Amino acid sequence: MAHVLGQNQYGKAENRIVRVYRDSTRHEIKDLNVSVSLQGEFEDVHLTGSNANCLPTDTTKNTVYAFAKEYGIESAEAFGILLARHFVEDTERGVVHSARIRIEEYTWNRIKTPDNTSRFIGSEEVGHSFVRDGGEVRTCEVVYDGRTDTVQVISGLKDLVVMNTTNSEFWGYIKDKYTTLQEAYDRILATQVTARWKFSYTGRDNEPQPNWNRSYQHVRRHLLEAFAETYSYSLQQTLHAMGTRVLNNRAEVDEVRLELPNKHHFLVDLSPFDLKNENEVYYAADRMYGLIEGTVHREGVVPVIPVV
Amino acid sequence: MAHVLGQNQYGKAENRIVRVYRDSTRHEIKDLNVSVSLQGEFEDVHLTGSNANCLPTDTTKNTVYAFAKEYGIESAEAFGILLARHFVEDTERGVVHSARIRIEEYTWNRIKTPDNTSRFIGSEEVGHSFVRDGGEVRTCEVVYDGRTDTVQVISGLKDLVVMNTTNSEFWGYIKDKYTTLQEAYDRILATQVTARWKFSYTGRDNEPQPNWNRSYQHVRRHLLEAFAETYSYSLQQTLHAMGTRVLNNRAEVDEVRLELPNKHHFLVDLSPFDLKNENEVYYAADRMYGLIEGTVHREGVVPVIPVV
Amino acid sequence: MAHVLGQNQYGKAENRIVRVYRDSTRHEIKDLNVSVSLQGEFEDVHLTGSNANCLPTDTTKNTVYAFAKEYGIESAEAFGILLARHFVEDTERGVVHSARIRIEEYTWNRIKTPDNTSRFIGSEEVGHSFVRDGGEVRTCEVVYDGRTDTVQVISGLKDLVVMNTTNSEFWGYIKDKYTTLQEAYDRILATQVTARWKFSYTGRDNEPQPNWNRSYQHVRRHLLEAFAETYSYSLQQTLHAMGTRVLNNRAEVDEVRLELPNKHHFLVDLSPFDLKNENEVYYAADRMYGLIEGTVHREGVVPVIPVV
Amino acid sequence: MAHVLGQNQYGKAENRIVRVYRDSTRHEIKDLNVSVSLQGEFEDVHLTGSNANCLPTDTTKNTVYAFAKEYGIESAEAFGILLARHFVEDTERGVVHSARIRIEEYTWNRIKTPDNTSRFIGSEEVGHSFVRDGGEVRTCEVVYDGRTDTVQVISGLKDLVVMNTTNSEFWGYIKDKYTTLQEAYDRILATQVTARWKFSYTGRDNEPQPNWNRSYQHVRRHLLEAFAETYSYSLQQTLHAMGTRVLNNRAEVDEVRLELPNKHHFLVDLSPFDLKNENEVYYAADRMYGLIEGTVHREGVVPVIPVV
Repeated sequence: MAHVLGQNQYGKAENRIVRVYRDSTRHEIKDLNVSVSLQGEFEDVHLTGSNANCLPTDTTKNTVYAFAKEYGIESAEAFGILLARHFVEDTERGVVHSARIRIEEYTWNRIKTPDNTSRFIGSEEVGHSFVRDGGEVRTCEVVYDGRTDTVQVISGLKDLVVMNTTNSEFWGYIKDKYTTLQEAYDRILATQVTARWKFSYTGRDNEPQPNWNRSYQHVRRHLLEAFAETYSYSLQQTLHAMGTRVLNNRAEVDEVRLELPNKHHFLVDLSPFDLKNENEVYYAADRMYGLIEGTVHREGVVPVIPVV
Repeated sequence: MAHVLGQNQYGKAENRIVRVYRDSTRHEIKDLNVSVSLQGEFEDVHLTGSNANCLPTDTTKNTVYAFAKEYGIESAEAFGILLARHFVEDTERGVVHSARIRIEEYTWNRIKTPDNTSRFIGSEEVGHSFVRDGGEVRTCEVVYDGRTDTVQVISGLKDLVVMNTTNSEFWGYIKDKYTTLQEAYDRILATQVTARWKFSYTGRDNEPQPNWNRSYQHVRRHLLEAFAETYSYSLQQTLHAMGTRVLNNRAEVDEVRLELPNKHHFLVDLSPFDLKNENEVYYAADRMYGLIEGTVHREGVVPVIPVV
Repeated sequence: MAHVLGQNQYGKAENRIVRVYRDSTRHEIKDLNVSVSLQGEFEDVHLTGSNANCLPTDTTKNTVYAFAKEYGIESAEAFGILLARHFVEDTERGVVHSARIRIEEYTWNRIKTPDNTSRFIGSEEVGHSFVRDGGEVRTCEVVYDGRTDTVQVISGLKDLVVMNTTNSEFWGYIKDKYTTLQEAYDRILATQVTARWKFSYTGRDNEPQPNWNRSYQHVRRHLLEAFAETYSYSLQQTLHAMGTRVLNNRAEVDEVRLELPNKHHFLVDLSPFDLKNENEVYYAADRMYGLIEGTVHREGVVPVIPVV
Repeated sequence: MAHVLGQNQYGKAENRIVRVYRDSTRHEIKDLNVSVSLQGEFEDVHLTGSNANCLPTDTTKNTVYAFAKEYGIESAEAFGILLARHFVEDTERGVVHSARIRIEEYTWNRIKTPDNTSRFIGSEEVGHSFVRDGGEVRTCEVVYDGRTDTVQVISGLKDLVVMNTTNSEFWGYIKDKYTTLQEAYDRILATQVTARWKFSYTGRDNEPQPNWNRSYQHVRRHLLEAFAETYSYSLQQTLHAMGTRVLNNRAEVDEVRLELPNKHHFLVDLSPFDLKNENEVYYAADRMYGLIEGTVHREGVVPVIPVV
């Protein structure tokens, strides 16, 4: 049979793990969703039914939980690097050639209660009580390729929903026979940001790791600020401004990709009711929606973040 | 045919509305999901095909958007009262006997950017830029019954996810032949709070409306504080503490109902790997889950919040 | 504290269970999602932290799985009755007064392969291979109340999506100042049926159980046929026709409740493109949607299916 | 600024369209979800705020609906080819270089009612009444690249959930220090199939289009049959069998990619209740899950279906 087994990978997806640090009465928690995917010498597993080269997905799951105890979780990225290296380097006979770890991280904030120990108005944290921040999800994808001894780290976020109530126009576009859209000189611009950014870090030659957590906070801030401060003539322009803002400010990042659905807010026609809608009342639509996607990268860098 | 048309209602559900206030450069927004449901003299609509008594759901939708312009949206509750009264009082021939308005409200926070106008470290809000708070959703249900001229307001929240990493035990329960659960003297307690609370407000005799927004903030705070401060021997006990905390502190509320799924965090058995799990590594499960529901109300009050 | 603990209940929700019968090479499967909820003497659990009266939710889960082995699953309803009676009758000191079992059932069909044993065109089932039917979900709710020794069974379905491409009109309705809807003399009528129907069965005095599975198939068929055959002047009218059709044909049912969202299909205006849309091209909208709900019951029967 | 705008694309996503054919009383419907994405000379749109090269996403939406009227929808693939060619060939000044059309198709079946025109037992279709098939969703992705005048068609399906209750083993795998999985000699194998397959069709030189609808039915059947008939030693092996089965039987397809989550069914331990679970009672888990992905292609074909 002249059929070829092409790219293939497997692993355990969506391992939900909560790691608690109880070193003081002020507990710390990490709440992750970890997905493992391995590539390597798995032809026999597919073709012959022999599992001699198969590290079970169940074992990859166990490893995630065990590593959380053995090494702790300083950041999703550092944890992913540890796991990816392990699967490649420690699996017997080198059958795993590369490993990809994807992680979603959910943020929790501390619950505050009134400070009753003082006459002054104030509040104090409860050291073991948390409320989940339902906003954006932090993401990362780590790939370790054993053949090149290279780590690739793409961090990101999703479900960050933002809105500008003004400073957005859209006009001067192509008109063809199917165009009915009216030009807009003051519209709402809203989107749900999915962003991924690649680090120049490769993990070779004892290169020190970036401070992943601090980097994340800064990139997130720059994305928000660029969105808020850009006077927009198209969502494409805003996308570009957001990507370049990150590159301009974060040397550790060399590629940014953004997916920005245009969450349409349509002005409701109130004229049948003798009311004038002065950009006050909008219908927030679900579907269909514009979808704007693009990459900005440093000159000379070969972009690697996949188009989806 | 000896068949009876029983309870029936209809209306337009999930009208997504965003209302922008542009009175200053610091814009304000309200983001609501409004569902209308009407009861009344609709037998003919069901039985004869005559729609002479039918106010179209499309009209109820238009009314929501028009009212947002005409009256603004001070709070979801006040807006719901206006709408409910309108459908009953203004629909021709009194065919609408009662109206129920359900509203979900989504919170947006302002995006802050560095304050570049001052030498001092600080930040300033962008008056027209917002990021959606993905946490809990505020809810309310308003019913106006024209025959008794009574308004009933049930406010609430959902999707408020909270966790205590200690101060939770569970033991001393019934053991029968199907019991395998080990007693726990220090466990994680996590839940996704759905809460509803009824106001004593009836809208009769020019009774002034409570400050709905301030009331909401306080009830939410008391729920969080009671969750954080209760040393728990069961999720039922925590539920009761949360409900009574609200009643003890908010005179305008006379009934509280809570639905608390027990979001299980299972301690992972690391002993096969020669590791000791000292309440550090948990598996966060999706399903199945415990579900604890209960009502707390003032003495003499007839509870009305429905069991679901 | 003059606060009263009102209605309360608890149990394990969403126990996903698959039961396989291997009595022949033609396997049979039941795929259920079972939720348990108990009411009883649980004041101390809420008020004092004593769990002496608490049957753990974990035990209720174990019981579901054990009963699947001990008694098998003839139908969701019969299985629910067994469980509900058990929790009330067998829990020590009679602390459980009533039990509610809710079950969702997912349907699987057999995979057929070509019949290679015969020269004739045909196909044969693979006795152990199934493909899930992604259509409607069958539901039931069983409540056993030990104080009255009464079983109440409400069966149902959800997610049954149906469409008529003609034979639907809507006109002659109330017009007020907020009405803009055009009358329609030939529209698409589509809805996603949620139906619940109550059986007259009470379980007292050795009353034999209905054939739950056959009853379900017939009720489902009558709902579909009534939807298809009714020339509709409103979705309310269609709802009523569906409910009465069931009552007319199934003596074991004495109350039917339907929730019918009007899944709007809007005719697209193609006139800007010099095209005439002769009821051919529609936009299928997500939200907002009309929502029509109603009960039909036999005369003399007190309706009990709750309004949601 | 040494930043480069990399890959970028935009368009209107998730245009929900229902097309009705009323040529006889036996209506036909097509129910699609169409997403458009364009690539081309859009640098200025991103960099300068000029929209002179921007065909609005709203126009791409209008085009979808207009084309449904002008050309009808014979199949999702043929409709996608028409649209993709149009956006590239007809947009002014050739600014659109390539267009990608993704389509989801939902299946509807006819509602049957008893045949009352005959004394014989039978049923007849209602020509205008349909019930949605909630099973798998048919998918396709068409890309037309104007620079090479090449069409690429990848068809597929998702949400096809299948289960074998026997004929599945898993043993002989790598054991390392994190392995706890017990070998299985008779387990349930269940998965939710996502499949994509590429056609050799390129659209050049008046190449006739395959019969897309017939091809789809056959590929789907071969996937199901291969799943049912394969005695499995791993899900990887089943994946490979499914892919090769399609290639062996469908000459028009030259690459198949499958994503197969292992929907774990765990045998419940009933021994604490003195019950023996003879492969009868399973817990169907949600997360975590194994995820097996792989490509099978003809020798000499360069695989193009992206890894996700």
